[in-house]
Amino acid sequence: MDALDHAIDASGSDAYVVYAASDDADMRYLSGFSTSDPFIYIRKSHRRGMIIVSQMEHARAVRESPAAVMTRAQAGLVEILKREKDPWRATAAMITGQVQGKILVPPRFPLALARALQESVDVIVDQNCLESMRAVKTRAQIAAIKSVQEVCESAIGLGISLIRRSTEKKGILFAGEKPLTSERVRAAMHSHLNDHGCTAKDTIVSCGEDTAIPHCLGSGALKARQPIVLDMFPQDGRSGYFSDMTRTVSKGKPGAEVLDMYATVCDAQALAISRVRAGVSGADIHQAVVDFFRERGYDNTTTGFVHNLGHGIGLQVHELPLLGPSGKDLVAGNVITIEPGLYCPGIGGVRLVDIGAVTRKGFGRFTKFPTDLVL
Amino acid sequence: MDALDHAIDASGSDAYVVYAASDDADMRYLSGFSTSDPFIYIRKSHRRGMIIVSQMEHARAVRESPAAVMTRAQAGLVEILKREKDPWRATAAMITGQVQGKILVPPRFPLALARALQESVDVIVDQNCLESMRAVKTRAQIAAIKSVQEVCESAIGLGISLIRRSTEKKGILFAGEKPLTSERVRAAMHSHLNDHGCTAKDTIVSCGEDTAIPHCLGSGALKARQPIVLDMFPQDGRSGYFSDMTRTVSKGKPGAEVLDMYATVCDAQALAISRVRAGVSGADIHQAVVDFFRERGYDNTTTGFVHNLGHGIGLQVHELPLLGPSGKDLVAGNVITIEPGLYCPGIGGVRLVDIGAVTRKGFGRFTKFPTDLVL
Repeated sequence: MDALDHAIDASGSDAYVVYAASDDADMRYLSGFSTSDPFIYIRKSHRRGMIIVSQMEHARAVRESPAAVMTRAQAGLVEILKREKDPWRATAAMITGQVQGKILVPPRFPLALARALQESVDVIVDQNCLESMRAVKTRAQIAAIKSVQEVCESAIGLGISLIRRSTEKKGILFAGEKPLTSERVRAAMHSHLNDHGCTAKDTIVSCGEDTAIPHCLGSGALKARQPIVLDMFPQDGRSGYFSDMTRTVSKGKPGAEVLDMYATVCDAQALAISRVRAGVSGADIHQAVVDFFRERGYDNTTTGFVHNLGHGIGLQVHELPLLGPSGKDLVAGNVITIEPGLYCPGIGGVRLVDIGAVTRKGFGRFTKFPTDLVL
Repeated sequence: MDALDHAIDASGSDAYVVYAASDDADMRYLSGFSTSDPFIYIRKSHRRGMIIVSQMEHARAVRESPAAVMTRAQAGLVEILKREKDPWRATAAMITGQVQGKILVPPRFPLALARALQESVDVIVDQNCLESMRAVKTRAQIAAIKSVQEVCESAIGLGISLIRRSTEKKGILFAGEKPLTSERVRAAMHSHLNDHGCTAKDTIVSCGEDTAIPHCLGSGALKARQPIVLDMFPQDGRSGYFSDMTRTVSKGKPGAEVLDMYATVCDAQALAISRVRAGVSGADIHQAVVDFFRERGYDNTTTGFVHNLGHGIGLQVHELPLLGPSGKDLVAGNVITIEPGLYCPGIGGVRLVDIGAVTRKGFGRFTKFPTDLVL
């Protein structure tokens, strides 16, 4: 992990310190350990990382983390608590027992702990070294993301097959005797994820006018000849890596506006993918899509294309790089989403989300799933 | 929310400000809104709270959050980004556009944002006002925790029934033709949670010597006449509230050491519950259990009772109050776990986790599930 050594040295610090639970992507990335309670990570310059965990976690941490493992008791917590009742100051004392001088911390480092540390060490905020490191994936990390993407595609495939096999009665879709609802499709997809060790929050199965609200989760009976947006970003329980995918389908042919929006979004996706390669800025690719939509009659104010074109994905759903107005140059090894969408209140919205890796020459798409609109 | 007004006033601040995603318990608690990306919460003294979210989230936030909702664009972000490229300073500018003077923030407030804010406002760290508020549950919050606890009990019941109905071949438990493994039991329980809108991480189904490591997740075939620990802390996807439960079972009678440990833990649980009521300190109840175990021949050093007796539970798995050496007085409305356990390396461990509410007179237990060891 030379980039981190470089950042520590360049900032004139003695160590990089993180305090968080494993749901914090920086902590998960550095510690390689998964636990629900916050713990300490210390990486001295050009040395192996170390974590300080509770006695309860010690055996598992030794087994799972590539870092050296110390218990809180070994870090002196029992003695510290005799003189220090404030938990933040006690945590700071465990850290300053291991490292003196200046420490470099990630931007989300807890303010209360920083203030306690500042009584004896200098605390410097790492602007984006760690986030930039996380944005460039190793082969193993790419394999982890591809693995959860495969599960994601089979889950979305399951959801779409429920819609495809449904029957229509007076515009409502039925599966058996009961209406096919957003809730049923979502539950079936989540059950599939669960069977494969993945979980998802805020999965969207929205229909009709609801699809015009990009983050509306959707509820109730699905309807024929209306756009149905299936959008999920599952996380693998073991690796912690996320995927992200959206498909838009319609049981029967939808109205002309939706057909035109969808054809336009497919063309925008192809355009965006053709522009992706290392060295091109996320801002330029986003702007190319905005311009393309405008040419095709969809502006980018309150309706039309109301969000960014894409984002990095890894241990966070949304991480660097950004494909949006302030997006910087892409780098080989970035794993990104490409997600053009169009939204028209009162009618509906359509969106496609694919993911893949940025390469020197282009975009190595992970998503294999077809993009047929009409079922 | 008078306690928050009081804290704002007492600290001489003008507003309470949080910046986090909804997986942060403080943010979920204050905003009543669930989203994966960080957003801003501002509560001016004696005023309604306000959240600042992306345009994408606006419609859903208006529908779901009791706070007033503003988009980032309405908070001036488009103009701010023209002069300010650093995302933390841009976020700070949105906040200082709404509130001047002094702001009070939670202990985990991101350091980078605090430093950007400090260029124009004073930032004061709230020591524990919000955490203490969250520790006292309303009736609706207690109902939410009871609801997820019911799902948790039926999931653990399902796991235990798989073990009960298994058959033994040469000391290994079988379900049908295949060994009954930790993984199969965990998957069946998670599938049940999923069907009821709940999810769980780090669920323990451990057996034999592994049970002596309290947080060992367990893997492989389950064995007869060995302790099997089933421990899960599911979260309700809708409310965000957690439950926590552990049962220890054995298919067939285990060895004398395990039988004695289990009987002792059951007695410790009864003792602990008899001590719980508002006004008693968590430290005293913990110490009573430590003393009781010592009387029964189990010390509290490297083996024996190696963890705290319990903790508050709510939007975090572990929150105030603490039932451990530095635990303070319990308050009516606290929802806590009572979780005595004993661990003996080379033999195994046993643990019981029940939850309930602290009342003026005692402990209103939510957990109904029986505690039979031998199946």
